[in-house]
Amino acid sequence: MNAMRLQVISPFPTDIDIANSVQPHHISVIAKKLNLNPNHYDLYGKYKAKVLLPVIDELKERKDGFYVVVGGITPTPLGEGKSTTTVGLCQALGAVLDKKVVTTLRQPSQGPTFGIKGGAAGGGYSQVIPMDEFNLHLTGDIHAITAANNLLASAIDTRMFHESTQSDKALFSRLCAPDKKGNRIFSDIMYRRLKKLGINKTKPEDLTAEEVMRFARLDIDPETITWRRVMDVNDRFLRKITVGQGPDEKGMVRETGFDISVASEIMAVLALTNSLSDMRERLGKMVIGNSRAGDPVTADDLGVGGALTVLMKDAINPTLMQTLEGTPVLIHAGPFANIAHGSSSIVADKIALKLVGPDGFVVTEAGFGCDIGIEKFMNIKCRYSGLRPQCAIIVATIRALKMHGGGPPVTAGKPLDPAYITENVALVEAGCTNLARHIKNTKAYGVNVVVAVNRFSTDTDAEIAAVRTAALAAGAYDAVLCTHHAHGGKGAACESATKPLKFLYPLDASIKDKIEAIARSYGASGVEYSEQAEKQIEMYTKQGFSGLPICMAKTQYSFSDNASAKGAPSGFVLPIRDVRASIGAGFIYPLVGTMSTMPGLPTRPCFYDIDLDTTTGTVKGLS
Amino acid sequence: MNAMRLQVISPFPTDIDIANSVQPHHISVIAKKLNLNPNHYDLYGKYKAKVLLPVIDELKERKDGFYVVVGGITPTPLGEGKSTTTVGLCQALGAVLDKKVVTTLRQPSQGPTFGIKGGAAGGGYSQVIPMDEFNLHLTGDIHAITAANNLLASAIDTRMFHESTQSDKALFSRLCAPDKKGNRIFSDIMYRRLKKLGINKTKPEDLTAEEVMRFARLDIDPETITWRRVMDVNDRFLRKITVGQGPDEKGMVRETGFDISVASEIMAVLALTNSLSDMRERLGKMVIGNSRAGDPVTADDLGVGGALTVLMKDAINPTLMQTLEGTPVLIHAGPFANIAHGSSSIVADKIALKLVGPDGFVVTEAGFGCDIGIEKFMNIKCRYSGLRPQCAIIVATIRALKMHGGGPPVTAGKPLDPAYITENVALVEAGCTNLARHIKNTKAYGVNVVVAVNRFSTDTDAEIAAVRTAALAAGAYDAVLCTHHAHGGKGAACESATKPLKFLYPLDASIKDKIEAIARSYGASGVEYSEQAEKQIEMYTKQGFSGLPICMAKTQYSFSDNASAKGAPSGFVLPIRDVRASIGAGFIYPLVGTMSTMPGLPTRPCFYDIDLDTTTGTVKGLS
Repeated sequence: MNAMRLQVISPFPTDIDIANSVQPHHISVIAKKLNLNPNHYDLYGKYKAKVLLPVIDELKERKDGFYVVVGGITPTPLGEGKSTTTVGLCQALGAVLDKKVVTTLRQPSQGPTFGIKGGAAGGGYSQVIPMDEFNLHLTGDIHAITAANNLLASAIDTRMFHESTQSDKALFSRLCAPDKKGNRIFSDIMYRRLKKLGINKTKPEDLTAEEVMRFARLDIDPETITWRRVMDVNDRFLRKITVGQGPDEKGMVRETGFDISVASEIMAVLALTNSLSDMRERLGKMVIGNSRAGDPVTADDLGVGGALTVLMKDAINPTLMQTLEGTPVLIHAGPFANIAHGSSSIVADKIALKLVGPDGFVVTEAGFGCDIGIEKFMNIKCRYSGLRPQCAIIVATIRALKMHGGGPPVTAGKPLDPAYITENVALVEAGCTNLARHIKNTKAYGVNVVVAVNRFSTDTDAEIAAVRTAALAAGAYDAVLCTHHAHGGKGAACESATKPLKFLYPLDASIKDKIEAIARSYGASGVEYSEQAEKQIEMYTKQGFSGLPICMAKTQYSFSDNASAKGAPSGFVLPIRDVRASIGAGFIYPLVGTMSTMPGLPTRPCFYDIDLDTTTGTVKGLS
Repeated sequence: MNAMRLQVISPFPTDIDIANSVQPHHISVIAKKLNLNPNHYDLYGKYKAKVLLPVIDELKERKDGFYVVVGGITPTPLGEGKSTTTVGLCQALGAVLDKKVVTTLRQPSQGPTFGIKGGAAGGGYSQVIPMDEFNLHLTGDIHAITAANNLLASAIDTRMFHESTQSDKALFSRLCAPDKKGNRIFSDIMYRRLKKLGINKTKPEDLTAEEVMRFARLDIDPETITWRRVMDVNDRFLRKITVGQGPDEKGMVRETGFDISVASEIMAVLALTNSLSDMRERLGKMVIGNSRAGDPVTADDLGVGGALTVLMKDAINPTLMQTLEGTPVLIHAGPFANIAHGSSSIVADKIALKLVGPDGFVVTEAGFGCDIGIEKFMNIKCRYSGLRPQCAIIVATIRALKMHGGGPPVTAGKPLDPAYITENVALVEAGCTNLARHIKNTKAYGVNVVVAVNRFSTDTDAEIAAVRTAALAAGAYDAVLCTHHAHGGKGAACESATKPLKFLYPLDASIKDKIEAIARSYGASGVEYSEQAEKQIEMYTKQGFSGLPICMAKTQYSFSDNASAKGAPSGFVLPIRDVRASIGAGFIYPLVGTMSTMPGLPTRPCFYDIDLDTTTGTVKGLS
């Protein structure tokens, strides 16, 4: 590959200065290196292109490349540099070792960009560029999700409103209004509901009064509505709101709220879908709540599944960008790891595996620590994709290992305790219990595990050596040092091998058995269900959804539910507070504790630093 | 020009069938015809490109083309085909008469696309294609506006929250938090507030306690907040809501609401700005409400004007598309005519005028009837752009003229009364009072007026002749027949001439004098102000905003405030219910009656018909 080589400068410059110091290639240059021709992609400006889904079919005879997933040990609140390691590894493979490589990453949420500093593009000499385009708007996928999510939300409230003010007959008459020739017809989407209701008729006038009622009246129970509105802005005042207070809404007020857009089930659908037709089906079967009779009500029942698909038709194509060293990156989806599975999309990985071909590498990232990220990557994402990774990389830092070994608390925005910047091999060794459990759990899927230490300048050789010893003892295939942050791609490396994938649980186990299998992998001795959780499990089982995989909503800061239990806690009982479901995306998500789905802004948001140089058009202050 | 020629088919096919029957050119082909090279634009897929603002500077020595504005008579609720006429006229000029021509149009709001049928892309053989890309997402400008608008909204509530829980000192300490070297500094944007407060200091530690308080405490009076959140979805349940009901927001609840995104002041800013730096200033000086002391609080006071500009930096570039006959169209902005000025952007018109060059034509549309659309186009848009149209086209239909002549009410969704489909010359002649007043008002700006009759198949030659006679008698330069809807560009035509532009009022007149000048043009004998309106006029005058132009928020269905007063009513007193302001966009808007800023969905929204053919990827059911 004709890669750019970075000039490494001391003292260490800021991320945005590094990003701006490199003139990116036109994205068609990057595409050409992947043997893509202009029919295979749509340009979005000069540095972004959407790679079109039919590429998968066109290359279907080609052998896939190696598939590598990057996870991490249980992190500190500062993060351990998983994205940076992922990008750095790919720069090493592509620009230094001259391998075919594609990195697949999640699209960052725009909202937090204006809140607290710290983007998702990697950092230092391991970044996706142009950084401002990566962090803002990108190619509009999250905007499309916002639009689709909120169209469905509006359809729910409006439908309840119209049902409350109209007779069955009036409602039906409007739903099947006469066309220009005066004939009443069912639209295509209505046949989905008719089929669900077991009504095998094609002419509206043939329905009995009882069938008219069943067809036209969704009879949504407002108490059961789980569908919320979304916005890609950190807006804490929208977490809980009352809607419908306008005079024309006739007192139909309702308490609801907004989540950040990446928390939308539609984002999870985008990440887990395999094709346009699969996405159409998933969007249509998303459940928004129940009827008063207890039946699930879907987007297709509301008549809107097709429109949602139309809004999402371009979003299904992943976005091609580049690293600082000119290696290709596919950006796609960004399911909120708090309540979804936190990995980038299946279609991006599939396209990438074909593009790199045999002997090439696709490196993707799994959100949060391995207990959540890798577990969901294997049991949910790989289950739906049918893909099998050859290797998992676990990113560790001396800082986080010291914390797990008993070091003082690490808090964002506060100076680090001296324990973290002076040598303390014993503390590192004690913390390796956390690393060891992640290695053991990950190996259980049948993949090779490589530990990558994201090295900071204060880490000593003796500390690094302790990690390597512990990693190999725990069964890691290798443990390597990464200095990619300071020296581009040079420091990272990877090995690969092939074994069959073993899931943690079979899909046909009961919801509780599946939850308990995951809890045991955390070190729990048992699981405790709230009354609400019991009720929900019973309901989902009755509704026929018990065959879905499980997506645990748990803190990333501990194997357990208690964020302050560091290291490798065991013997605890995992509490399940509630159980929810994303039926369209295809998983049940038990809530272990409270999960925030809408971040807020601090007193001094970083938007104070962000401005445009209106002469040059460059963005200032983004990080 | 190497234009496509349309095959006209009988019987008349649907809009989407016509749109899908033509294979659009790659947009680079359209760009090349305008002498644009690939550095002048960014591609967004194959059929859309953003033309970059620096093109204006590059061509600044070139003479502008002719500038034509299309308005209409007072319409029926069915609309009189202004967009169709605009597109058809350009197809005639470009594809038939071989003139250089660019059409500049507003971007349609996505929300209504899923509500009631009837897009904004023109219709029949006069359309912008691809129709689905035109109506959905386009190049993300409205999404950018939504994001920017809501970031500002979140900043308001969050700031009030943080001010309520922190001392002056704590607040100041956080706003000027120490940097990595431990120094406290003001960020650039903070100097804007310091300057406004008359504090001429550069070091945070030099501020007195009183200055600290004035700087750090915006002390926003929640009762005065005019900034609302927005969403590009028809969601009536968001018209009036209560926010802040989450437990973490500590009881700081507040009543507010959502408007549809195109109603955001940021959309009006986009439409009225002349450059990046001008947009930066306008966004920063948008007023969101007052302090308790009665001073206006701006986006820059909140520290967010720069971030808003960054979110809008790509949106400032208009989007190039094409008509069915391959003539170029620049799509940009879509200010909500109900409360803003309802014309597409100044920058699109400026780029277009340079691109067509001398002897070329730029044809743009002004929303609503001429009483509102042309009036605002001249007194607001042309005032800010410095551009002068040579010609105004007034679109009329026999149907609307009959309504003005005393015909029975015309209601959307109900069959037309026979009066509208059988010859009745007397009714047409009587209705020409409406047309005549629009001609007189428009001629008063010093432009030539051409009346274009959008002919329907039931209109007779005698009816058309009556309109021509009345139009010429009222001072029109010409009156022509348009059959563009049925026969592409062939039917429309335009003449031009140059006279100096005369505004309806000088900017230095008082707010009331300006309102009254506009009211007289409607035929009003006087103006009546509510107590609230008087109070607001006094406040805006005191705050120094009385020099802005006026943007009347009035029904488009009558010259008067009473939508059922057809023809050319006179002698009425125009009531001003309230007066508001878009300070960043740069106008004061008096409210004549209640204006809806958030549409709803009907019982059977047209999303029932919309779906994706997942095999071909084509959109079905959009209109």
